[in-house]
Amino acid sequence: MANSQYSADLDKNAANYSPLSPLTFIERAAAVYPERCALVYNNSRRSWRETYRRSCRFASALRQHGVTKDDTVAVMLPNVPAMYETHFAVPMAGAIIHALNIRLDPDAIAFQLEHSGARVLLTDPEYATAVAAALEQLDDKPLVIDVDDPAFKDGERIGDFEYEDFLATGDAEFAWELPHDEWQAIALGYTSGTTGNPKGVVTHHRGAYLNAVSNILAWNMGTHPVYLWTLPMFHCNGWCFPWTIAALNGTSVCLRDVRDSAIFDAIRQNRVTHLCGAPIVLNLMANAGDELTKVVDRPINVMTAGAAPPPAVLEAMARLNFNVTHTYGLTEVYGPAVVCSWHEDWDQLPMRDQSQLKARQGVRYPMLEELIVADPETLEPVPKDGKTIGEIMFRGNIVMKGYLKNPEATAQAFGGGYFHSGDLAVCHPDGYIEIKDRAKDVIISGGENISSIEVEATLYSHPAVLEAAVTAMPDEKWGETPCAFVDLRSDAGAINEQELIDFCRDNMAHFKAPRRVVFGPLPKTSTGKIRKFELRERAGRL
Amino acid sequence: MANSQYSADLDKNAANYSPLSPLTFIERAAAVYPERCALVYNNSRRSWRETYRRSCRFASALRQHGVTKDDTVAVMLPNVPAMYETHFAVPMAGAIIHALNIRLDPDAIAFQLEHSGARVLLTDPEYATAVAAALEQLDDKPLVIDVDDPAFKDGERIGDFEYEDFLATGDAEFAWELPHDEWQAIALGYTSGTTGNPKGVVTHHRGAYLNAVSNILAWNMGTHPVYLWTLPMFHCNGWCFPWTIAALNGTSVCLRDVRDSAIFDAIRQNRVTHLCGAPIVLNLMANAGDELTKVVDRPINVMTAGAAPPPAVLEAMARLNFNVTHTYGLTEVYGPAVVCSWHEDWDQLPMRDQSQLKARQGVRYPMLEELIVADPETLEPVPKDGKTIGEIMFRGNIVMKGYLKNPEATAQAFGGGYFHSGDLAVCHPDGYIEIKDRAKDVIISGGENISSIEVEATLYSHPAVLEAAVTAMPDEKWGETPCAFVDLRSDAGAINEQELIDFCRDNMAHFKAPRRVVFGPLPKTSTGKIRKFELRERAGRL
Repeated sequence: MANSQYSADLDKNAANYSPLSPLTFIERAAAVYPERCALVYNNSRRSWRETYRRSCRFASALRQHGVTKDDTVAVMLPNVPAMYETHFAVPMAGAIIHALNIRLDPDAIAFQLEHSGARVLLTDPEYATAVAAALEQLDDKPLVIDVDDPAFKDGERIGDFEYEDFLATGDAEFAWELPHDEWQAIALGYTSGTTGNPKGVVTHHRGAYLNAVSNILAWNMGTHPVYLWTLPMFHCNGWCFPWTIAALNGTSVCLRDVRDSAIFDAIRQNRVTHLCGAPIVLNLMANAGDELTKVVDRPINVMTAGAAPPPAVLEAMARLNFNVTHTYGLTEVYGPAVVCSWHEDWDQLPMRDQSQLKARQGVRYPMLEELIVADPETLEPVPKDGKTIGEIMFRGNIVMKGYLKNPEATAQAFGGGYFHSGDLAVCHPDGYIEIKDRAKDVIISGGENISSIEVEATLYSHPAVLEAAVTAMPDEKWGETPCAFVDLRSDAGAINEQELIDFCRDNMAHFKAPRRVVFGPLPKTSTGKIRKFELRERAGRL
Repeated sequence: MANSQYSADLDKNAANYSPLSPLTFIERAAAVYPERCALVYNNSRRSWRETYRRSCRFASALRQHGVTKDDTVAVMLPNVPAMYETHFAVPMAGAIIHALNIRLDPDAIAFQLEHSGARVLLTDPEYATAVAAALEQLDDKPLVIDVDDPAFKDGERIGDFEYEDFLATGDAEFAWELPHDEWQAIALGYTSGTTGNPKGVVTHHRGAYLNAVSNILAWNMGTHPVYLWTLPMFHCNGWCFPWTIAALNGTSVCLRDVRDSAIFDAIRQNRVTHLCGAPIVLNLMANAGDELTKVVDRPINVMTAGAAPPPAVLEAMARLNFNVTHTYGLTEVYGPAVVCSWHEDWDQLPMRDQSQLKARQGVRYPMLEELIVADPETLEPVPKDGKTIGEIMFRGNIVMKGYLKNPEATAQAFGGGYFHSGDLAVCHPDGYIEIKDRAKDVIISGGENISSIEVEATLYSHPAVLEAAVTAMPDEKWGETPCAFVDLRSDAGAINEQELIDFCRDNMAHFKAPRRVVFGPLPKTSTGKIRKFELRERAGRL
């Protein structure tokens, strides 16, 4: 149809087409609100003008040290201002942000740096030992920049430059350019991968722009939020929030350590309006004690994702004046891409019913084009009956480009034209989806599927339970049966295995109740997820 | 760089790329909030599910009557529900919305229908006489559909179908598709053009999507707004607000006639949160009288554009509890594309200073990539001194594709890679732009440029003045001098020409004061703009 009257002589040109990029957000924030506070860290504050100029300087310094389009800049930093600046400076230089989980061991660091081909690595003295050990494994070492933090006393410098010295080599007037193509890569993030080597998820400018805005719509955010960084920026680029906060000309409150006292101090000092975190962070906050939590004197918006927040945690958060929005996503979809979008009439329901509705993952993000729960082979959507289990699949602009240097894994993930999440869910009659399990976490007992999440939710509703995880345990008769791993509250009274099993049998179908309960702290991944694969192994040896 | 590791095997596919289109907004609104009210008109209400299904049915009916990709569907309707549905149904059918100004005369209607090649025309019995006369001029007549309105008693049907009957021929389950390419045209709107034939501005799905969202960010809109349609939907597709309200799952309150009593009745009955209008609508509201305005018992957000609102009008609106946001744009940039983004510390200033700050056009819309005030020849930006005049130019994704079947005008408008607005402005030290005049409205007196807008603002500050317009008047000695046309308030006391001239001389440089003042109602275009070209002619004959 190129000869349609609506196409002829109506082509793209410099005046009417521009690649979408979140870099336009910081440029506008600095132009329109130059004096507004962009970054707070302990007692220091920086304006949008300063933050923008420092980012330009950083980009310029990278260019002067040979970084160019499609190069990789790795960063292993806590939530300090330099980590925020990285999210603008690296793409300004045309390069790709490769954020490393700060809890990785030397082998994992070395694998990622080698696989991504990082030209530069920013790191923090706290991680010097692990990073130095990783660097020893590399033939081709990146330029290493230490980001010194006056708030951290120990650790050592291992780099070629200190960050501020490196910035001093750059030009604050650096004339950065938008990417030539909005499909250009902006970030690389490795999945935590419980088996085998992690896969490198590549995202692009267009998707980062759209999901940054989609966060605003999904969370009903207003202009100038004060956002507390309880969510690691290394995790899916902080779910795109560095760019979201720039788009809203807001303030980022940095936080080196996610401890309860540090969180509530920051809330008190900065009139925080928004924060994000995995349910484990919510749990930490809900259990912080009155002395700390009393500073929450107005509603604060909390977004959670990573696992369904147990109803008991949601209820505790509501009592503390936190307004929790539940989202769901994966690294492959830029962080959150599904939201439990609230309905006003649900406010009238009993708290327990509200929490159950809120524990559902929900509906597609405003800028995700399609979300289905379907048979992974036929791609046939399951009926909206709240019962039939299928795989969650995504389609749209906030789905990754693919996995770096891994065309097989990319092709497999995109089979049939949908991104396959590996998560199993049902679709309720109102169209809201609810995760029942990771594909590999389903327990098949006597031919019946048991959702480990359902058993966990029952355990969480017991007042003595702080954390719970349920996995399959081999069983001669049934094939598999549920095994529970439980960490009790410090103030819980005495409770034994049989009492907890009986509690479950009283509150769910008997065949779903765990046959064994193991007490003790739960092992976690570096992103705070419970290491279920390790528990599965332990259950196999019981 | 196609062989970069970030490009290889990382192409677009059905899973990770989708054309941007505002059609995704209504599909999501109907899926997530099916029972919420989408449309109110007098005493009838329709949910998002109904509105979506009716739009699908309408699209299906269009297809069944031969409408296909890149066909034109014209519509000449007031702000009734069918006009809202048109904004979804027509692009669902792959076609282009061509909205006609309801005040056009038969010749202008005939010109536009012939130029656009409209296959279908929707119209209202109120305009039957003008439309019938226009149709007589056409060799190739469109299919005509009357949208009968129980709220309008007179007029006659001239169509082949009545709208509801036409919808009945369609299928509510119609499987519409997104455009293959987001650059595909979505709408056509003719500029009012004071001389020569009007030009047809062609916009696309990508831009409509982005400006619909940009409205949300620029206006700090929350979810579920109740939006009163005081702005004609035929005007730049209602500044993209039909799509904005769908994206926010809000409610559109339709309004056939923009009269003060109808506006305030609708506000009272529907807890309106937002409305838009030209300054002339603000003036109407500000002068409605206590009996009507007393229903405004909480702040209501008002967006205005089309001309700078005089400070006196802004102050009156503020007193009535209307929170006015001033924007600026043109049909060529999808409606508003510049916003006077507010700063909290301005709230502390005297009301008069606030109004003067707010009367400035401001800064680029969040999703407009570039806005400059520059020399139209060299494209050199003017200094940010608040004095040097240049032309306002735009660059980015919310700039039109170009003018329909008019490559010369398109090339001229995009000269140098910027869209040239024809509006003259200064840039203040804080980066906010302020329009000084249309290029042709500047008065050159003794070699000095006089901004007609500045003289008008002075006149508006006189309590007796309801409306004012200033144009050049030929003068043997000075070349040109300012001539004022003034409509006085009905309750204004006696005031004569000399008194008004003296008032101006007391409040601005003497050479800028008008030499003549002509009293009486001002002529307006069909979009409510003052017909300055007509006043210029009158001034030439004085």
